[in-house]
Amino acid sequence: MDPRPIGVFDSGLGGLTAVRELARLMPEEDLVYFGDTGRVPYGGRSRDILVRYARQDVAFLRTFRPKAIVIACGTVSTTALDVLQAENDVPVFGVVEPAAHAAARLTRNGRVGLIGTKASIRSGAYERVLARLRPGTQVTARACPLLVPLVEDGRSSPGDPVAETVVAEYLAPVKAAGVDALILGCTHYPLMRRIISAYMGPQAALVDVGEQCARWAKERLERDGLRNRPGHTGVHRYFVSDSTEDFSALASVFLGEDVAGGVEQIDITAY
Amino acid sequence: MDPRPIGVFDSGLGGLTAVRELARLMPEEDLVYFGDTGRVPYGGRSRDILVRYARQDVAFLRTFRPKAIVIACGTVSTTALDVLQAENDVPVFGVVEPAAHAAARLTRNGRVGLIGTKASIRSGAYERVLARLRPGTQVTARACPLLVPLVEDGRSSPGDPVAETVVAEYLAPVKAAGVDALILGCTHYPLMRRIISAYMGPQAALVDVGEQCARWAKERLERDGLRNRPGHTGVHRYFVSDSTEDFSALASVFLGEDVAGGVEQIDITAY
Repeated sequence: MDPRPIGVFDSGLGGLTAVRELARLMPEEDLVYFGDTGRVPYGGRSRDILVRYARQDVAFLRTFRPKAIVIACGTVSTTALDVLQAENDVPVFGVVEPAAHAAARLTRNGRVGLIGTKASIRSGAYERVLARLRPGTQVTARACPLLVPLVEDGRSSPGDPVAETVVAEYLAPVKAAGVDALILGCTHYPLMRRIISAYMGPQAALVDVGEQCARWAKERLERDGLRNRPGHTGVHRYFVSDSTEDFSALASVFLGEDVAGGVEQIDITAY
Repeated sequence: MDPRPIGVFDSGLGGLTAVRELARLMPEEDLVYFGDTGRVPYGGRSRDILVRYARQDVAFLRTFRPKAIVIACGTVSTTALDVLQAENDVPVFGVVEPAAHAAARLTRNGRVGLIGTKASIRSGAYERVLARLRPGTQVTARACPLLVPLVEDGRSSPGDPVAETVVAEYLAPVKAAGVDALILGCTHYPLMRRIISAYMGPQAALVDVGEQCARWAKERLERDGLRNRPGHTGVHRYFVSDSTEDFSALASVFLGEDVAGGVEQIDITAY
């Protein structure tokens, strides 16, 4: 048993969709979340900048002496996972391996769709894992740079003409490829799930990277004897790098419930 | 006469639309441009973070000992101009005053439209200047948080269904208000000019904040004897905070010509 908290970070608030899943699966774990709202979005930035930002995010979380780090950010998972794993002596979980496993399990026809940020798609990370897990898988990938701004702007509900136009345009080639599993390669995208699902139709199973990553983390913590004692009520703390003013309203959208813990602003460039 | 350069900065590459105008009006001036591509966009961030970022941007430009600073960023102009003017002993020009003067000159019916980032609209800066210049002016303002992501993604040409849908939705209430002058309150927006103009129709004069700011800066530098000697060919230097890789292609879109000077990446958090 290990009472230390789990550290979770994302470029902004999208990673809270992973926090929701972690809290559901492991209610007895303490969680520390950092959302880099002062520098969101990450998805269009270069590898060098992403590695620098991710290192600072992890350095901040490490001040809480976490037993594991969850990268609840598709962009960092595809671009900086190896660096972060090499530099840290606690387990660092990204979203790529868990999501690729889920897609390989779900697809029947071997055609998998992938949407993500520019940096995520550029990395080729999912293709590499899928080629190993299920050789011959045909991946149709599309960078969707406008989805994060749309979600962060609260425009993700069916009936929003802009969100629907954007989703239809991005997904047209993915749908045309006949995929039967679609990886939502960014923790912001589950908020768009209803629009994406309506466009893709019931034949495509949607893979939520945050959800898969949370399950993956749970299995590994159990395997390694790192879970907290049963019965403890997990405490959740939230930190952001921009003002906390709008946090509660937006956070409750991502979490699907009111924010229980407090939220504090920190200067991430000091880490 | 003053041979020192003019410093110009923006959150990203939108400010290059102001550089183009500065270079056209004052070809003999040396220009140093900084685009904070590692932290773009600014428009959704809080005042505290914006002031911190703007101070760093100016501190970097001051290493070139400029004779003036041009804030080629609508968000910083509306939010941090007073702070930057108070802290610097060289003239600091923002876009609000010049653009409001142009709108007050152009409107016949006293109904002025304004589009900008969330932070710009929240500031009320244009309304305050217009109330002074032309009492009774009725301002219809709309925050357009998706326009910067669209422009930075290169999606700003007529025929792009997403850009056209977004523009129509944002501008519907502005058009309905019957404005005959529309302030494009962000230096990214001139790239959307053709879509915006097609939607608004010929009765609305469009005010380009970068262009107005460049004219304003020229007049004031002349008045104060700060222009460079005639005949000198201005040297333009460009700096960004993320990778320089995509700079040339994107920059030439904003500048309307190939980038003549070199471009370097700097660590803006060191300033």
